Amino acid sequence: MPESPTRTVDEHLAEILELVSPPPAATLPLAACLGLTLRADLTARLPAPPFTNSSMDGFAVRAADVAGASAGRPVELPVADDQPAGPRGASVLAPGTAIRIMTGAPLPEGADAVVPVELTDQPRGSVPLPPAVRVLEPVVVGASVRHRGEGVAVGAPVMPAGTRLGAAALAAAAAVGYGELPVARRPRLAVVSTGDELAAPGEALGGGTIPDSNLTMLVALATEWGADVPVAERVGDDPGTLRAVLARAAEAADLVVTCGGISAGAYEVVRQALESPRVRFVQVAMQPGKPQGLGTLAASHGDVPVLALPGNPVSSFVGFRVLVRPALAVLAGRDPHAETATVPVRAAEAWRSPAGRRQYAPVRLEPPERPGEPFLARPTHRLGSASHLVGSLHLAHALAVVPAEVTQVEAGQAMAAIPLPPWSPELPVQVAPHPR
Amino acid sequence: MPESPTRTVDEHLAEILELVSPPPAATLPLAACLGLTLRADLTARLPAPPFTNSSMDGFAVRAADVAGASAGRPVELPVADDQPAGPRGASVLAPGTAIRIMTGAPLPEGADAVVPVELTDQPRGSVPLPPAVRVLEPVVVGASVRHRGEGVAVGAPVMPAGTRLGAAALAAAAAVGYGELPVARRPRLAVVSTGDELAAPGEALGGGTIPDSNLTMLVALATEWGADVPVAERVGDDPGTLRAVLARAAEAADLVVTCGGISAGAYEVVRQALESPRVRFVQVAMQPGKPQGLGTLAASHGDVPVLALPGNPVSSFVGFRVLVRPALAVLAGRDPHAETATVPVRAAEAWRSPAGRRQYAPVRLEPPERPGEPFLARPTHRLGSASHLVGSLHLAHALAVVPAEVTQVEAGQAMAAIPLPPWSPELPVQVAPHPR
Repeated sequence: MPESPTRTVDEHLAEILELVSPPPAATLPLAACLGLTLRADLTARLPAPPFTNSSMDGFAVRAADVAGASAGRPVELPVADDQPAGPRGASVLAPGTAIRIMTGAPLPEGADAVVPVELTDQPRGSVPLPPAVRVLEPVVVGASVRHRGEGVAVGAPVMPAGTRLGAAALAAAAAVGYGELPVARRPRLAVVSTGDELAAPGEALGGGTIPDSNLTMLVALATEWGADVPVAERVGDDPGTLRAVLARAAEAADLVVTCGGISAGAYEVVRQALESPRVRFVQVAMQPGKPQGLGTLAASHGDVPVLALPGNPVSSFVGFRVLVRPALAVLAGRDPHAETATVPVRAAEAWRSPAGRRQYAPVRLEPPERPGEPFLARPTHRLGSASHLVGSLHLAHALAVVPAEVTQVEAGQAMAAIPLPPWSPELPVQVAPHPR
Repeated sequence: MPESPTRTVDEHLAEILELVSPPPAATLPLAACLGLTLRADLTARLPAPPFTNSSMDGFAVRAADVAGASAGRPVELPVADDQPAGPRGASVLAPGTAIRIMTGAPLPEGADAVVPVELTDQPRGSVPLPPAVRVLEPVVVGASVRHRGEGVAVGAPVMPAGTRLGAAALAAAAAVGYGELPVARRPRLAVVSTGDELAAPGEALGGGTIPDSNLTMLVALATEWGADVPVAERVGDDPGTLRAVLARAAEAADLVVTCGGISAGAYEVVRQALESPRVRFVQVAMQPGKPQGLGTLAASHGDVPVLALPGNPVSSFVGFRVLVRPALAVLAGRDPHAETATVPVRAAEAWRSPAGRRQYAPVRLEPPERPGEPFLARPTHRLGSASHLVGSLHLAHALAVVPAEVTQVEAGQAMAAIPLPPWSPELPVQVAPHPR
């Protein structure tokens, strides 16, 4: 009898998420916040712009003084001062005069408009301050003026807690007065790949050895996601050695992931090293990736969650995407369920899925026959989702999700798929606001 | 008269791309290749899997020996040996016997199938080698066997030059025998933000000073893209100081980007420091971002291209996306035009666009009224694409591209938009193969 799954993917994920909790917020300088999650609602400390200023190079005036200007009958005003951008602050404009002003410079007190240099008799560029300027067109009150706070008023909400801080968000935070932000620190994930059969990538192979693609892959997946990887080790089938490596991993990390050594065989080093009241090995109703382990490791700073993934590379890949990333999201202060958000697709061809297990099939996406219909999903390899086919995994655009009760996917069948970022440049995307 | 644009965006970009060229390929270990571009076609050095092996924990047999097995009439075979995964290599199976075998272990010579442990009288897990096994079901030839090279044959193409090396691609390279890869090194981008009016983010402001959001933003944009940023400096309006900083920047970088100091004013520090036969300042038919500069700086390792962006934050943002990223792509060995690939959208509301200039309007994307139609694009701020509105730029999902000849965008109008990755978790996507 095949061993029956003991739990659904959702039940397993729920138990994983109980093991992890977000760390307290840390305050970091903006330059260290890229990719991190904001841990408090941000409101504007400064208005944007912080003072009323000119949006053009030109001459600050009172609009009333140039109301009658035309090319044929220009209005000549004495140029009383020069107002560069910079820390000097605003000049004062007397009626009937002009002040030369640069883009971004504070609007002089008494001025209510700026005449761009192009609407005067003056040349553009780096020239001495002229004694007078002839204005060739009238301007309305407020012309070429950016008012204090017109972009963002003081106290206005700028971004909510939970925002992932990309470049534009960091710029916005700077513009409204922040030099540092309360964030969740970058999660630290330790990765340990196990098995006597593993050789380092590129190493000459003996009789029964294979290149270890898992360690490279899991470290890269964690890095792509935005985690730090303080420990990345390959260990053979000796439980004592593995226990020592895991103890070091737990000291250095917020989450430990192992790979391999958890199935039904006689030499399952992760089971042998970890099976205890703290760590359980279970059968999850998913394919690939049925055997899974979860629990905690003791460390001097407290219990550290450990997830044990199976060793087949595609199983590891799917396990990272479906189980590890949600745990990292919690550690990063983000919504774990957003990590497995799906898009609608249709099957491009028929394929099989095992009874009673949710299948995650690596698929290519192809354009639909009619524009606007869902993309077509085709398994990346003629052999389907067999879990050892790491050699074609990089071709996948998404993981098609086949429900547990479906054993035969039919061509044209509607289904959900988890897209696999990061996007390569040859994969432009259609963006949709999150349906949740 | 407003100064007329001297060139289209496409003409300007073409001239920029003539300034940059991809570096020679470097060979780096897999762990250093994440995010880099492969510079040669990769073919399999090893077959995947590298030897014929078991996909299950169980017993290697000759299928013919268990052809008549059933639960009622099991076939009993003596267990002659134990075949763990690992470097020992394959055993030899005598007819009429079984060899216990673990997942991934080499199939013994003489065996042609594996009976999973679940189809025998033996328990799963870590137990002593039994003297004999009773097989409860027949298996076909090839059952639970993964054949050498069935995933990838030796010499088969695995991925082409130009592939961006994500986690799965690195795993595939490892699996087919590579420990290092020929790649384009990570481009080095120096960023210099200019202006007497700039204060560091979070610093108290004087009368005419504003927080410098550009330096933070451009460094973050470069980092998000995958460039290194060896120099990131804020400089005031002194041309001599700026020249010294730029000389250092050129020594450390493959590309230098400045920000601010290039428009029509009297105090334009970047123009003053750089205007020469090597560097030109031009008017590009785009909004925001009309003033632009381009040229080269002399460095001891040769000429280094420099791009001068305008200082308004949204202008800088758009300039980075539309002009700097394509140059970085060339430096990284990738297709520069993929950086500005667009998706179809429709305008959610009407807005204006300047005559004779291509507009890049930061927009939110909203779901269409009917599923399958293009997403609806709505400017992120009630004030439209005004270039100083950095406080709302992080809300944008995309830059809507309004053609130069359009002065009025109508609600419902079809247009293209450049999506703005990296995607936040609340932005699931629909993926399409690249149309090019």
